[in-house]
Amino acid sequence: MRARDLLTDFPTVTLDTPVLDAARLLADQDLPGLIVVDANGLPLSVLAGTQVLALAVPGYCQDDPALARVVDEAHADTFLSSVAGRTVREALPREARELPITDPGATLLEIAALMARTRSPLVAVVSEHGLEGAITLQTLMDRALTS
Amino acid sequence: MRARDLLTDFPTVTLDTPVLDAARLLADQDLPGLIVVDANGLPLSVLAGTQVLALAVPGYCQDDPALARVVDEAHADTFLSSVAGRTVREALPREARELPITDPGATLLEIAALMARTRSPLVAVVSEHGLEGAITLQTLMDRALTS
Repeated sequence: MRARDLLTDFPTVTLDTPVLDAARLLADQDLPGLIVVDANGLPLSVLAGTQVLALAVPGYCQDDPALARVVDEAHADTFLSSVAGRTVREALPREARELPITDPGATLLEIAALMARTRSPLVAVVSEHGLEGAITLQTLMDRALTS
Repeated sequence: MRARDLLTDFPTVTLDTPVLDAARLLADQDLPGLIVVDANGLPLSVLAGTQVLALAVPGYCQDDPALARVVDEAHADTFLSSVAGRTVREALPREARELPITDPGATLLEIAALMARTRSPLVAVVSEHGLEGAITLQTLMDRALTS
């Protein structure tokens, strides 16, 4: 079994997508993450669901739990509204890291190792023709358990 | 809104649960992760779905992509069978890290910051009475988007 046998179509976002729209897409379709593509449709980044959430959480609250605690309940409830104007471009993590991207020939074990290493429940599959689709942790687990 | 308003019952595993059973539980119920509890039902660890997968992927394949690539397709398909005899105890990550565990009084922003910081789509909620339940990224996103 190869990556090409496990593909599903997957919605993408761009650098110009508002963070709020990205969050809504993730929540409405119950996705494990999102693929950020460039103008040619090639993946620039693959964000796990928790990283999409991180786009919307003020940095000072992520770094210091005590600072999140002092925000009162009413403001805490509406934290998403504070990112209303931001796009994915402004919020994308800047650190260099291995991206969960593979080719159509990757085996089940390679995909599993990539997901485990990058802690991403979503892997983008790219061939010489471009983005072919994605493989989710759910799909991978289902296939691994029946193999 | 507080953690206590967002709780859902959530299945747990113990240190003696076979890795294969943990993987099956995750896949069959499409869970974002698993809570590992001790004999008193208190959480010892909270594993994201990709960390449950990591329990089942040989360490050498996670560390070195080239080594995963040389395993032939037939063996790669059945990698899960190689962990048939292992339990969660033997496979649990040993590194000290902040666990995604909070109290019933945590606000939506605190829970979001905790998920973002620990990169866990699952947070366990513990009170003086023990494990109260869990909050998933999906639940949190749904509530944050309607607040």
